Amino acid sequence: MSKIIFGIDVGGTTCKCGTFSKEGELLRKEEIPTRKDEGGSLILPDISEYIKGVLADMNMTTEDVAGIGMGLPGACLEDGTVNKCINLGWGVFNAANALSELTGIPVKIGNDANMAALGEFWVGGGSEYNSMVMVTIGTGVGGGVIIDGKPLYGFNGAAGEIGHLPLVEGETESCNCGKKGCLEQVASATGIVRTANRMLAESDMPSSLRSVPYISAKVIFDEAKGGDALAIQVTEYVCRYLGKGLACAAGMVDPEVFVIGGGVSAAGEYFINLIDKYYKECVFHASRQTKIVKAALGNDAGMYGAAKLILGN
Amino acid sequence: MSKIIFGIDVGGTTCKCGTFSKEGELLRKEEIPTRKDEGGSLILPDISEYIKGVLADMNMTTEDVAGIGMGLPGACLEDGTVNKCINLGWGVFNAANALSELTGIPVKIGNDANMAALGEFWVGGGSEYNSMVMVTIGTGVGGGVIIDGKPLYGFNGAAGEIGHLPLVEGETESCNCGKKGCLEQVASATGIVRTANRMLAESDMPSSLRSVPYISAKVIFDEAKGGDALAIQVTEYVCRYLGKGLACAAGMVDPEVFVIGGGVSAAGEYFINLIDKYYKECVFHASRQTKIVKAALGNDAGMYGAAKLILGN
Repeated sequence: MSKIIFGIDVGGTTCKCGTFSKEGELLRKEEIPTRKDEGGSLILPDISEYIKGVLADMNMTTEDVAGIGMGLPGACLEDGTVNKCINLGWGVFNAANALSELTGIPVKIGNDANMAALGEFWVGGGSEYNSMVMVTIGTGVGGGVIIDGKPLYGFNGAAGEIGHLPLVEGETESCNCGKKGCLEQVASATGIVRTANRMLAESDMPSSLRSVPYISAKVIFDEAKGGDALAIQVTEYVCRYLGKGLACAAGMVDPEVFVIGGGVSAAGEYFINLIDKYYKECVFHASRQTKIVKAALGNDAGMYGAAKLILGN
Repeated sequence: MSKIIFGIDVGGTTCKCGTFSKEGELLRKEEIPTRKDEGGSLILPDISEYIKGVLADMNMTTEDVAGIGMGLPGACLEDGTVNKCINLGWGVFNAANALSELTGIPVKIGNDANMAALGEFWVGGGSEYNSMVMVTIGTGVGGGVIIDGKPLYGFNGAAGEIGHLPLVEGETESCNCGKKGCLEQVASATGIVRTANRMLAESDMPSSLRSVPYISAKVIFDEAKGGDALAIQVTEYVCRYLGKGLACAAGMVDPEVFVIGGGVSAAGEYFINLIDKYYKECVFHASRQTKIVKAALGNDAGMYGAAKLILGN
């Protein structure tokens, strides 16, 4: 009978690898580098080697493994097909089958943001609820939708792509995705800095941001909390669009809770409260009381979610 | 053994009542008036009387009925609770239990737009697909989300409220829902007329719309098809926002197909193609090829969907 599960979160720099008991306990955790050379063709063999090493180390065989869950930075279908992971150099192929052939272990895959959502739903900020939308605000803005305990994949593997909702009217610059006016362009860590630089250039308002050596999202939130008028203007602008994004998510799936994660969420209650203010202003009245909470698992969320994919509901 | 199913679509003026075989065949169809006097307290007793009449007429008893599905113009929860139907004068109560007590037959309820979506999914425009988002463009803009053959209710019964996505920046007037900037304010039949009247007032552009005795959404689309520049400007503006709304829906649930229904959808291919043009412009690339099709069941969709709620997957 199988005893363990692997939860692997494949990122652009490292793969976070968790070994879990079938009861869901994290037994060990390591990171291996994501080797993107040769069109990303080394990544799955590296993961396979890692898993074989862990099994040897634990005196186990593939028979002891219930499955491998894997989160990937791209659109994933429920059948295991990945629809391009640009960051990894991958095209379209069945990544679940490929890793399964290398390891002899059943594999399921999901989009990394969906896996983070599933992890938070399982043991993190969403664990007391039945449905949730997670928004991960870091370098980009990712999202994941959980309904009745299951991640929503979407027909093209693109459900929960909240960062690319077309919310910003009149945007002239292009998003990484090629469109103009995506939420991510103002609300990601880089988007927040871009917004601040724009506002600094457009006004003569005195601001502590003018004298800091390096403007980051963290600095902007710190200065806003400290009362700097221009930094406050930036955070209000950013959170107004995030509130709109959450209102759109509520209008479509009406979850029980929103969970906010990613590096920018370290800005804490000030950030959450500001999003909530604008959310309440523009959401449909029936969803007005929906809670917005902070994520709890940090960078481990995706690894937990990938394992949960194997554990099932 | 039960032989028939009732599908009732409760509207503000009439209730459309369908009697279906367990195989899903529509056996008979009638409308009864929706009596809104006395706080809407006559509506369920009227439906109960109607059902008893049909059973007597068909020489059947309640034993012959598998269930009653009922679509209602308000937020509905899966447990049968209706969270206000302002049009009917209803507050918060379990409408499914109430009708079940009156009839002695099991009852399930759903929001009318969700039921229309389920009907179209079952035997209409969405019948070849596994997931869909329906948008009903009439007096208002309603929506319904179907995932894996099931309507998505949402925690507050508000999933699929696409008409109240906050998409229109800088809107100064209020929507019926109390907010400002809802998609419905520009894209419902009344919103389209309002948009035309604004554009007529703001410019001196000659337009056939200036001389028609009565401007309706139909007239505007007819004139646009005929080449009137201002009417074209109105339809482009309206469809740009509808395209954005669909792009937001795709970003959250990524359905296999969009089905467009309601009175305004009579504008046909011109309308669908224009929505599609703007959809493609602002949707996340993975969902770019998602089909947009016209609804097929007209005003019967809600009745079919209500019956399907009883038939199950």
